[in-house]
Amino acid sequence: MPEEENISSAKETGRIEAFSDGVFAIAITLLILDIHVPEFKENTTLLSVLSGEWASLLALLIGFMTILICWINHHFLFSFIHKSNSVLVLINGFKLLIVTLTPFPTALLAKHLQNAWGPSAVSLFCLDFSLMGIGFMGIWLYAKSQGFIRNISPGLSRSITRFYIFAGTFSTVIWLVSYLSIIACLGLSSIMFMFFIRPEKVTNALAKRGK
Amino acid sequence: MPEEENISSAKETGRIEAFSDGVFAIAITLLILDIHVPEFKENTTLLSVLSGEWASLLALLIGFMTILICWINHHFLFSFIHKSNSVLVLINGFKLLIVTLTPFPTALLAKHLQNAWGPSAVSLFCLDFSLMGIGFMGIWLYAKSQGFIRNISPGLSRSITRFYIFAGTFSTVIWLVSYLSIIACLGLSSIMFMFFIRPEKVTNALAKRGK
Amino acid sequence: MPEEENISSAKETGRIEAFSDGVFAIAITLLILDIHVPEFKENTTLLSVLSGEWASLLALLIGFMTILICWINHHFLFSFIHKSNSVLVLINGFKLLIVTLTPFPTALLAKHLQNAWGPSAVSLFCLDFSLMGIGFMGIWLYAKSQGFIRNISPGLSRSITRFYIFAGTFSTVIWLVSYLSIIACLGLSSIMFMFFIRPEKVTNALAKRGK
Amino acid sequence: MPEEENISSAKETGRIEAFSDGVFAIAITLLILDIHVPEFKENTTLLSVLSGEWASLLALLIGFMTILICWINHHFLFSFIHKSNSVLVLINGFKLLIVTLTPFPTALLAKHLQNAWGPSAVSLFCLDFSLMGIGFMGIWLYAKSQGFIRNISPGLSRSITRFYIFAGTFSTVIWLVSYLSIIACLGLSSIMFMFFIRPEKVTNALAKRGK
Repeated sequence: MPEEENISSAKETGRIEAFSDGVFAIAITLLILDIHVPEFKENTTLLSVLSGEWASLLALLIGFMTILICWINHHFLFSFIHKSNSVLVLINGFKLLIVTLTPFPTALLAKHLQNAWGPSAVSLFCLDFSLMGIGFMGIWLYAKSQGFIRNISPGLSRSITRFYIFAGTFSTVIWLVSYLSIIACLGLSSIMFMFFIRPEKVTNALAKRGK
Repeated sequence: MPEEENISSAKETGRIEAFSDGVFAIAITLLILDIHVPEFKENTTLLSVLSGEWASLLALLIGFMTILICWINHHFLFSFIHKSNSVLVLINGFKLLIVTLTPFPTALLAKHLQNAWGPSAVSLFCLDFSLMGIGFMGIWLYAKSQGFIRNISPGLSRSITRFYIFAGTFSTVIWLVSYLSIIACLGLSSIMFMFFIRPEKVTNALAKRGK
Repeated sequence: MPEEENISSAKETGRIEAFSDGVFAIAITLLILDIHVPEFKENTTLLSVLSGEWASLLALLIGFMTILICWINHHFLFSFIHKSNSVLVLINGFKLLIVTLTPFPTALLAKHLQNAWGPSAVSLFCLDFSLMGIGFMGIWLYAKSQGFIRNISPGLSRSITRFYIFAGTFSTVIWLVSYLSIIACLGLSSIMFMFFIRPEKVTNALAKRGK
Repeated sequence: MPEEENISSAKETGRIEAFSDGVFAIAITLLILDIHVPEFKENTTLLSVLSGEWASLLALLIGFMTILICWINHHFLFSFIHKSNSVLVLINGFKLLIVTLTPFPTALLAKHLQNAWGPSAVSLFCLDFSLMGIGFMGIWLYAKSQGFIRNISPGLSRSITRFYIFAGTFSTVIWLVSYLSIIACLGLSSIMFMFFIRPEKVTNALAKRGK
């Protein structure tokens, strides 16, 4: 009965993407709920009160960029995946779990960046980020091993594989570094953001160089 | 005027799935709102405070898996349903009501798992789970009785019917067992999760064995 | 340059429906946020505490049914509308405003049904419901006047027109009745629910009888 | 390997729109969470208590109209854009960041319109509005410079360019005016709303006049 499996699979990637997009869109929009509206105080200005909450706003920006980059890469990977099965749905489910958790480490960052829990909050955020990288690596490697990738050149396929193995390992390194030095961790994270903000450029460049 | 009914029906399953996916995506993402960001305390570490909230995190995971598995099975069933009418919309609406309620028993679990209300909270969660199983059974049996299923082999159709009658009855049994023994209830739930996490495998296997 | 207008219109109803579905799905899922998780109290059971919150649960059910029926009718109307313009987007925007407001009168109902503000809360909910009915009437009458309806029999078109003029006027009557008698208002609302839960049945029946 | 870039691009605008629609839908629905359900007080009516919260309701309406108009224009622009790349995704991401932020200045407006922070709250809201206008200008100018616009008449293309340069500059002017006069700022905002609520009418009129 293989065709029955297939008909149900054909519809599958479309709904996986739609459901994932919904989760991404909600998680990214919920971040604002952590920014509290300040109470009115005499003899101060609204701007001075808000600027005292710079840590919340910085955390919001970091959380937003994290989920946006995550969406970009999810979108990039699923543009090549044209089949699915229940294992891929579960790996993607793990990925979505990490995305739905993201508002929590972001809120920890916002609340504790300026006190003694700051470094732990940064490390927890990095752990979240690392699990995302591992999730992407898992999605791609599994989909490739099952032949769920549509026809692309072997060079591009190889460069995507390298790129997401890098995603999983480098983000884990960043997490470990966060226990040693917050500055080094932020520097490495910025480098990583710059690579993963435009996955199709980097993987195409890698593929061309590899020829 | 039967063709008018049909034109409007053709568009219907697409929008039912889109609306349902939205509800699933929001319900699964709202779960994180129940994890409260702890206040800073001197002389403790963030990790020790967070590990004291293990019940919240466990409840989040259970809630997440419940809604994810629910989405997987919803998706699986609607991959076979190609027509709809107002009764099916209502049965699906009942299903969605249970999904939107899920963050509530999850929050009860998170808050009361460690106190004397724990067993009642577990039973309420099981009731939610049982109503989901009954909802799935209702969707499939009604859609089948109305001829809304697209052309699949009688063997597969029969095995899907058996699978979702099992969903409705076994989840109700788990709910009843929860009043007798929490341990037995958790064991049975785990077995059920393993079956319903990959409905297409199980139903295909049943269909093949039935031949 | 009329074709440019048209190309952009062709894409329009699809995105109007997607955006509206998102708003419906979120509004219906946010209702659960108003059900507060009770604090643990010694010497009581969870069930007895929850059953004391029956008004919240009833309000949740009413709010859920209201938004679900609203989605069903939105879906029904847009299955006939194949063009759009900025005025229709605005009328639909008014409709969506009322949908996004719905969690507020629902929360008022939940909190004040059992105190002296109960009747006012019921009337406010009815006002929300009435504005929805007027919104539907506006969407259909405007779309029809502009020729945005795809080819349906004149009989069906007429019966839909009658049905939604009834929606706008009868829901307004229910709102006014709510100031006189809560019981009469609930009775009329139930009748209205039964009609609008299956708009395609009622309008087809009206169309057939009209022949 | 240019075709690989293209295949992934083809799918891209569809998912950008779906993700953006999700963000718009959630942001517009979250606005209601800022309207607090009042506590019961003896010897007052619900209506009198609610009418004392007119500032919250006004802010909700302004926030709703802002996000709705933003959605209309996003939708209008993307009806012409048929390709994408990572830079456009980032510009659109900036746009979405402003949209997700909108509930915050709306809540500031609701809470402080009636106290001494009122003018600052209005200015912050105008800054949000201005960044939206600049975001739209950026999306269009970048997409046009990259040839991502599908075949439209040069006249229409020119008039859209003018319209969104106007959006970016005029909204910035309104923000600056807000520091001088709240009344003038509201007047100019109303004029701007009237133009941007129906972008296709205005740009078509401009295109016709330009001939």
